[in-house]
Amino acid sequence: MFTLYSYYRSTAAYRVRIALEYKGLHYSYKPVDLMRDGGEQHHDSYMKINPQQLVPSLVTAEGQVLTQSLAIIDYLEEVYPTPALLPYDPIAKANARAIAQAIACDTHPLNNSRVLKYLTHTLRIDDQAKQEWYAHWVNTTFTSLEQLLRADPSRGHYCVGDSVTVADLCLVAQVYNANRFKVDMTPYPNLMAINNHCITQEFFIAASPEQQPDYPATTN
Amino acid sequence: MFTLYSYYRSTAAYRVRIALEYKGLHYSYKPVDLMRDGGEQHHDSYMKINPQQLVPSLVTAEGQVLTQSLAIIDYLEEVYPTPALLPYDPIAKANARAIAQAIACDTHPLNNSRVLKYLTHTLRIDDQAKQEWYAHWVNTTFTSLEQLLRADPSRGHYCVGDSVTVADLCLVAQVYNANRFKVDMTPYPNLMAINNHCITQEFFIAASPEQQPDYPATTN
Repeated sequence: MFTLYSYYRSTAAYRVRIALEYKGLHYSYKPVDLMRDGGEQHHDSYMKINPQQLVPSLVTAEGQVLTQSLAIIDYLEEVYPTPALLPYDPIAKANARAIAQAIACDTHPLNNSRVLKYLTHTLRIDDQAKQEWYAHWVNTTFTSLEQLLRADPSRGHYCVGDSVTVADLCLVAQVYNANRFKVDMTPYPNLMAINNHCITQEFFIAASPEQQPDYPATTN
Repeated sequence: MFTLYSYYRSTAAYRVRIALEYKGLHYSYKPVDLMRDGGEQHHDSYMKINPQQLVPSLVTAEGQVLTQSLAIIDYLEEVYPTPALLPYDPIAKANARAIAQAIACDTHPLNNSRVLKYLTHTLRIDDQAKQEWYAHWVNTTFTSLEQLLRADPSRGHYCVGDSVTVADLCLVAQVYNANRFKVDMTPYPNLMAINNHCITQEFFIAASPEQQPDYPATTN
């Protein structure tokens, strides 16, 4: 039994929730509200769990704390290998990881709440410049991924081959976030076909922001 | 025999060079100058190899193109497991990956050349604000990692346990970059002890920016 420190609309936590649901692993959900009281991730009680003050953190039954969404997913993959979230073939595995990292390293960290806060409060950029910043990094990555997927003859319903991999977890969470920021997704028909195929499936639905205990009755 | 598309001072390429040297793998070096002619990574010839227009890319003897430094390192670890760059124990492995990702996801992508270019040319921030932005994200991550390492009773000469892992590769490359931007490293004695231990070793030296064929006679 795991404990997941999560925020309903954190895309990094969303990735881990999909992995847990996909592998059928039970977990208790501890919400960390990134907005309330200056951000609960900065409170002493959470900093003791995760000095980086980011979500998610996953605590094992033995009390070991794991951080960083992709490291957590690799841990789950190693300890609970079935059903798999990585292809067996080393090249396909590297491709799935590369797509995941194009999102988890080169896109999301530029657009998460702490960075948008810095842009607004320290660099004092206005809402339009912030929106353009957000869209710029999503579009930069999605343009290259769309090109990559279009050129892949072996592709089925998912980013790599024809089963769910860590790449799809990252894609679905990033598309959710991009929709929230109203980025136009029409230039990415291949990415959206994968996203739309994924989000109808039970374990993606169970992991979605709307299904979490901290999803607010009224969102802003 | 691999082909590595690299730039001498790209920290992501630097990580992969250390992994290749550590595992004793031969590779030919293809420089991609991120500064010259608007950035050679944006030229058609390189975009065909890596649509993300980032370095590094590693091409296998069979012509398979691998991208994203951590995905490449995981591939090398799987196909050439000895000497290892990840601990055997799943929890220690997750910890090594989490430190690597704290740098490779949450620090470096905020401070790489394309982001600094956007800050300067699109948001038109001045040199001091750019320097503060750079230092802010290094200090945010390094403060949390220093705390984590200080609290780890099992730590030896490296980030996790007493052998080199992917975490050390990311640390050394990030410290090199932070030094270039003159970020004060004195608040991080534990991180610097690891860095200073690593950089005296043969495979770290062989992978260092100064040893690369594209290292300029006069740096700026």
